[in-house]
Amino acid sequence: MHKKLFWFAGLFFSFSLMAQTGDTAFIKQIANEVLTNGKAYENLRILTKTIGGRLAGSPQMYKAEDWGFNLLQQSGSDHTFKQECMVPHWVRGGKDEAWVIPRAVPLRKTASKIKKPLDILALGNTEGTGSKGISAPVILISSFDELEAKKDQVSGKIVFYNYHFNPTFIRTFDAYSDAVKYRTKGPALAAKYGAVACIVRSMSHSTDNIPHTGGTHYDSACKKIPAVAIGLQDADWLAGKLNSQPAVWVTLKTMGHFLPDVKGHNIIGELKGSEFPDEYITIGGHLDSWDICEGAQDDGAGIVQTIEVLRALKALGYKPKRTIRFVLFANEENGARGGMQYAREAAAKQEKHLFALETDAGGFTPRGFGFTASEEQFNKIKSREPLLRPYGGGEFSRGGGGTDISFIHQQLNVPMGELLPDSQRYFDIHHARSDVFEGVNKRELELGAVNMAALIYLIDQYGL
Amino acid sequence: MHKKLFWFAGLFFSFSLMAQTGDTAFIKQIANEVLTNGKAYENLRILTKTIGGRLAGSPQMYKAEDWGFNLLQQSGSDHTFKQECMVPHWVRGGKDEAWVIPRAVPLRKTASKIKKPLDILALGNTEGTGSKGISAPVILISSFDELEAKKDQVSGKIVFYNYHFNPTFIRTFDAYSDAVKYRTKGPALAAKYGAVACIVRSMSHSTDNIPHTGGTHYDSACKKIPAVAIGLQDADWLAGKLNSQPAVWVTLKTMGHFLPDVKGHNIIGELKGSEFPDEYITIGGHLDSWDICEGAQDDGAGIVQTIEVLRALKALGYKPKRTIRFVLFANEENGARGGMQYAREAAAKQEKHLFALETDAGGFTPRGFGFTASEEQFNKIKSREPLLRPYGGGEFSRGGGGTDISFIHQQLNVPMGELLPDSQRYFDIHHARSDVFEGVNKRELELGAVNMAALIYLIDQYGL
Repeated sequence: MHKKLFWFAGLFFSFSLMAQTGDTAFIKQIANEVLTNGKAYENLRILTKTIGGRLAGSPQMYKAEDWGFNLLQQSGSDHTFKQECMVPHWVRGGKDEAWVIPRAVPLRKTASKIKKPLDILALGNTEGTGSKGISAPVILISSFDELEAKKDQVSGKIVFYNYHFNPTFIRTFDAYSDAVKYRTKGPALAAKYGAVACIVRSMSHSTDNIPHTGGTHYDSACKKIPAVAIGLQDADWLAGKLNSQPAVWVTLKTMGHFLPDVKGHNIIGELKGSEFPDEYITIGGHLDSWDICEGAQDDGAGIVQTIEVLRALKALGYKPKRTIRFVLFANEENGARGGMQYAREAAAKQEKHLFALETDAGGFTPRGFGFTASEEQFNKIKSREPLLRPYGGGEFSRGGGGTDISFIHQQLNVPMGELLPDSQRYFDIHHARSDVFEGVNKRELELGAVNMAALIYLIDQYGL
Repeated sequence: MHKKLFWFAGLFFSFSLMAQTGDTAFIKQIANEVLTNGKAYENLRILTKTIGGRLAGSPQMYKAEDWGFNLLQQSGSDHTFKQECMVPHWVRGGKDEAWVIPRAVPLRKTASKIKKPLDILALGNTEGTGSKGISAPVILISSFDELEAKKDQVSGKIVFYNYHFNPTFIRTFDAYSDAVKYRTKGPALAAKYGAVACIVRSMSHSTDNIPHTGGTHYDSACKKIPAVAIGLQDADWLAGKLNSQPAVWVTLKTMGHFLPDVKGHNIIGELKGSEFPDEYITIGGHLDSWDICEGAQDDGAGIVQTIEVLRALKALGYKPKRTIRFVLFANEENGARGGMQYAREAAAKQEKHLFALETDAGGFTPRGFGFTASEEQFNKIKSREPLLRPYGGGEFSRGGGGTDISFIHQQLNVPMGELLPDSQRYFDIHHARSDVFEGVNKRELELGAVNMAALIYLIDQYGL
């Protein structure tokens, strides 16, 4: 009996060792393929430089959809399809402008009296001021507590939220989580107390003055006041001005508005499973970007990395056990309709989804993955961590996912994860005109794809 | 007895826990200080933008020495001094130029027949061609083995080493270690077989065509032939040309030469030890840089991080047990005379050195530290690794140090270490005109300083 047990234990150990050695070797093959023959960087150049910004509903959205569809096919997808969803169609409508003005006068008369232009950018989904602009005194607000305390002084004014990105958080996404409520909820709260417009300090700790846009949510009970982001240097200047001279007037001119919803699509490629074709593993990023940038790190990087995982697995002749879905999600930035539609159809078809991975934190050097899963599932995947350490992505932590896959996670209880690249540079360029191809490093982008492919391979092989 | 042992063990555990908690808290204080009040980024801007390239012997070397001396004083150094050493004085002497020419004709007659200019840069310490240039046929050599095989075909030709940076190494320094011999030894070997000049493929996997210089070593028995680095796109083009058309002539024009050695200095600041003032911990980088760049990542970053460690420890009122030396080494790039002098004086004065840390791999996001130390010493410092993990620098590995501190390591058997930042972007800009301030990220630079300060603090507190 004991002998048998030993023999059995020995056999198990050998299998396990063989599997480990096989995994190590296959992951090395993935790395060699991506780092030697990788197409992600050149694909990103084409997406960013020939299509550019691609907000939902824009002509560039349709160009990007066709580009993605063709590239999935060329990269080895067994089955490629478009999944239709209606998407919002917000347009900026013109150039966003702002000036500090000497006193309250109509915009057309201030030209000769301009004191200082401010570098601003309308927040996504906002209603503009119209071509005449809005001129009003500015009230400096450092926090929502201060807004409550000063709520009687807000009416008729432009609320300027000057809440700073906290530099002491090591992971910059923690600073974003801490500050972003001033962009998402701040304008609606200001409107509640009668503000006529809103200026929000950009969600960034960059050293430049470039404003960072992003979505905001109106409260249906209040007026949809215009709202803009302001660059950090101008924010500091304006705050200083307001501290020394209470009556500062600003003119804002923005032209944002919604057009009727239009048809958009999730673009999906598949590698069919050889053993469990009806079990799905999803990997993806979002194809849309803000209008004012190339969307290189956000999220062109996630898109070309997703497609590179497909290309590399196919090039290596890998036959997955489960069906792997490569999803280029629609409309993450200002509606998330793509993610919603993906979850809705998966639920309607009663698909069995094993795991979903999103990459939407930039194509910077990989450091690890975050997982939202049960303790048992997390421990299982955590045991594979050493296999990814040589490639930089070996820090597995709890928590994380992504906007697009959060719907399938919620509706079908699918475990989810996200690539965690180094975060230091991300909010320098996030949602800003500085998010361009030139900021992406070829090898960092490729190493992200290597780690994503390795993780997907391990989950395909061993489940969760 | 057992009771006593338990009591003792319990006490030890409490002390250890208290120390750990105190360490955690102090390292957090360091991080908050550097990330909130840090001066490293602004100091780097001044060094790179107002002084710029600062090769040994140049007027900029002296400006940088004065700047460093003053900054160490301002940052809280108890005792600041210059340590004299003679440094080589190599000058580029003019613009480095090269063309592919239709046939062997003197340079002055080829102007109208230029086929293609090549982006090249003379290697450091080389003798130039003189203003008439050298025109000769090029022979393509992919490895030293191939050179040996073709040694009879080399005489009178320009040897073009086209050895590629290997993209499958994950840490780019491994690719550098693998390839750099073609730059350091290649020209001398080519001269041995009668080559008249040498072109070396740049030590990089950048996506641009910018050439990367660096030192080379002549063999005293052979002619000191001119040698240059060539950009990667031109290298690929030239290799393709040579594969399809054996007789390709190139004209090189470089003007490099040595002037007599001059006085240079290591610039040193100290925080005096309160318990063991005669025990030294060294932390440093090199103040010199190649002439053709701003030396921002190499090694302006290491310099301003070293000074930031001093500033932060002083700002926090830290009184070290041992004397901490902050050393801005002279002449690392083309002579290492600063490091030699530092070791020579330490040996002559019989100084007791506990540890030396160098930072010369760029100011990119920190990932860990490498240590060349005994197993016991390494295990001791390795046990502190978890304290640095929250700040990104928690991967401690064996091996590593730096050119400057290698001399004190060898002569006095001093354990040494180096900061290991993420390496993906480093060789894109290393020794190239693209190594400028704009490539440095403020927070990445600061986080390097945080981890360096934390490590130095731990070694000061607990020894090795």
